[in-house]
Amino acid sequence: MFSNRISKLESSAIREILKLMKDPSIIAFGGGNPSVDCFPIEQLKDISNDLFNTIPEKFLVYGLSDGQTEVVDEFLKFFSRYGTIKHDGDQCMVTSGSQQGMDFLTKVLCNEGDSIICESPSFLGGMQAFKSNGASLIGCPVLEDGIDTDALEKLLDVENKPKLIYVIPNFQNPTGITMSLEKRKKVYELACKYDVLVLEDDPYGSIRFKGEMLQPIKSFDTTGHVIYLASMSKIISPGMRVAFMVGRKDIIGKCVVAKQVNDVHTNVWSQYMMMEFLKRNDMDLYLKNLSKIYQDKCELMLSCMDREFIQSVKWTKPEGGMFIWVTLPSCMNMDDFVKEALNRKVAVVPGNVFFADDTTPCSSFRVNYSMPSNEDIVQGIKVLGQLMQEMSK
Amino acid sequence: MFSNRISKLESSAIREILKLMKDPSIIAFGGGNPSVDCFPIEQLKDISNDLFNTIPEKFLVYGLSDGQTEVVDEFLKFFSRYGTIKHDGDQCMVTSGSQQGMDFLTKVLCNEGDSIICESPSFLGGMQAFKSNGASLIGCPVLEDGIDTDALEKLLDVENKPKLIYVIPNFQNPTGITMSLEKRKKVYELACKYDVLVLEDDPYGSIRFKGEMLQPIKSFDTTGHVIYLASMSKIISPGMRVAFMVGRKDIIGKCVVAKQVNDVHTNVWSQYMMMEFLKRNDMDLYLKNLSKIYQDKCELMLSCMDREFIQSVKWTKPEGGMFIWVTLPSCMNMDDFVKEALNRKVAVVPGNVFFADDTTPCSSFRVNYSMPSNEDIVQGIKVLGQLMQEMSK
Repeated sequence: MFSNRISKLESSAIREILKLMKDPSIIAFGGGNPSVDCFPIEQLKDISNDLFNTIPEKFLVYGLSDGQTEVVDEFLKFFSRYGTIKHDGDQCMVTSGSQQGMDFLTKVLCNEGDSIICESPSFLGGMQAFKSNGASLIGCPVLEDGIDTDALEKLLDVENKPKLIYVIPNFQNPTGITMSLEKRKKVYELACKYDVLVLEDDPYGSIRFKGEMLQPIKSFDTTGHVIYLASMSKIISPGMRVAFMVGRKDIIGKCVVAKQVNDVHTNVWSQYMMMEFLKRNDMDLYLKNLSKIYQDKCELMLSCMDREFIQSVKWTKPEGGMFIWVTLPSCMNMDDFVKEALNRKVAVVPGNVFFADDTTPCSSFRVNYSMPSNEDIVQGIKVLGQLMQEMSK
Repeated sequence: MFSNRISKLESSAIREILKLMKDPSIIAFGGGNPSVDCFPIEQLKDISNDLFNTIPEKFLVYGLSDGQTEVVDEFLKFFSRYGTIKHDGDQCMVTSGSQQGMDFLTKVLCNEGDSIICESPSFLGGMQAFKSNGASLIGCPVLEDGIDTDALEKLLDVENKPKLIYVIPNFQNPTGITMSLEKRKKVYELACKYDVLVLEDDPYGSIRFKGEMLQPIKSFDTTGHVIYLASMSKIISPGMRVAFMVGRKDIIGKCVVAKQVNDVHTNVWSQYMMMEFLKRNDMDLYLKNLSKIYQDKCELMLSCMDREFIQSVKWTKPEGGMFIWVTLPSCMNMDDFVKEALNRKVAVVPGNVFFADDTTPCSSFRVNYSMPSNEDIVQGIKVLGQLMQEMSK
């Protein structure tokens, strides 16, 4: 009945967990939403009003598939703050969330059976998007300073080259790990050497609260090997579904065609909302304040982990973003742990779902610190710590 | 470099024409936008304000992939006004425009080489969506009372059955033709007999200004053979990108998965905007007034055609929607006509682009009456009439 590419694809495990999290008695460490405290509600309301008063005829009609020209220009200006992201021969487009860009790009590039290299572990939604277009996934380990570039080279030095290397260099989802500058350069070098495209996904880059800003891989790209994705979801609002994609003109051009036949264009009002927000604010200051909120929550959670978790448990210390990756000692069964945590009303995401092959044995789970309240962070980590103690006996 | 399914797909011819139409000196009969006079700007502004004042935390965060539950319920109520559209075993979902539903459905159903029957001519965007997923198109002629059901049966009575029959029963795009009740029943009967799904696309159904309302094919569907698409684009605003899909639970369930990996969910604000608009208005009255605007424009254009066009030219008389289909006598070359009309600053869409195979010889073109001003309608039809006279000499 169903097509090959879709028949094996199930509804995302995370979204099932998110449904559970609607239960208000559950402490929700499973999501990936920005903190509700962070939404600039009053200003967005004013902007919406102004848009209705000034240009309703611009956003109530059909828009352009590649995005409204002035919006694209403003986004380009904003996302270039950490390095050049548009080179000669590049084109930009607005997408309804970054994931849409991933879906279109794979639709445009991959025939059934073509492969894509993903970090192992990696963003579940991205991997699902790749699979849904018939691509097969190849995992490449993530080390403390980002993807294992030696392993990556081995995966590239093959006859049937993969179509794409998918990486999240900043505060990776799910691990919170940041790829070092050397590795960013190395990934680009390998992409050129083996003539394989890099898909650089950077939804969290603007939420850095520690360490030094590192240039995106795209900033080195003089050869058209890198496609860069950035998003408004984590810095302003995910419900708006506005993101941004930059890459080689021929590739982005085909993605625009894929968008024409899908949602035709991104909601025009929300494009202008985001543009005006960028224009009206001192974004350096805004992001500094925003990052501070995340930093406080992250530091609170890390200090709770220091206090509550047993010594054999390890976890990452992110410099930004919204996730911590917790690894249990081999004596504990991660699946049992996650299930029992849920019984005790704390929801985390089992790590195996973030692997290309989710039956890979995994002793880690993902924890989000941006959504829960401070009280929930303290209480939830306490519950998890207690469970670790019980299970280690 | 590119995937098979996408490499042959070019940017839509209509969108190229739409770009030309930005030239304010051009009389634009090429588009498919609702009339700008029709947008309920003030009320939408009030609703947006109210939403920001009451439920910002509901629409600034991630939403549900199948649409916000209360929105789905309201849409279902609204779209059921012309007959039952949800049966036992059916599921509903919100999409970012109807075309997104077409794209997901084909992605979910079709492997490369699977075929889809389209009316001939049919909606270009739909056909492009089908092709972009590797489906091949089979055209079935449209007669004065809708699709040729004899021809349809022949196309169904084959070994490799098509995956889908795609029809637009109300005021079809591009012809403006309405499918008779008998044919609606017959299409459903054939779908059951040959066990092939029907995709019923109904974006214009609510804009009927003449004749009697006819039940949608979906209203007969007790067997789960019909998937129904309806949209807010033509009755409230296309820039909002909000539409609605109903069909068998297993099929819609897979489409929800396809949506999860694409835009994750439709812009939540715009979903609530549409829901509130439906709730706050006497929609019978609203649609009556809206249809009257279209009727006036349609009648004006038809009367101009009566006056200006030469006798050998034929055209359809729609009972709703926004398009008239004009057919030139065989002695005139349609392509030359359309090009020369554009030279004289009147843009219409060459009919061949609406055929599964756009190299099919075609002597028709599509005219839109909802967008142009009354002055432009009078002047534009005059220019076309003059050109007909010249070319018939």
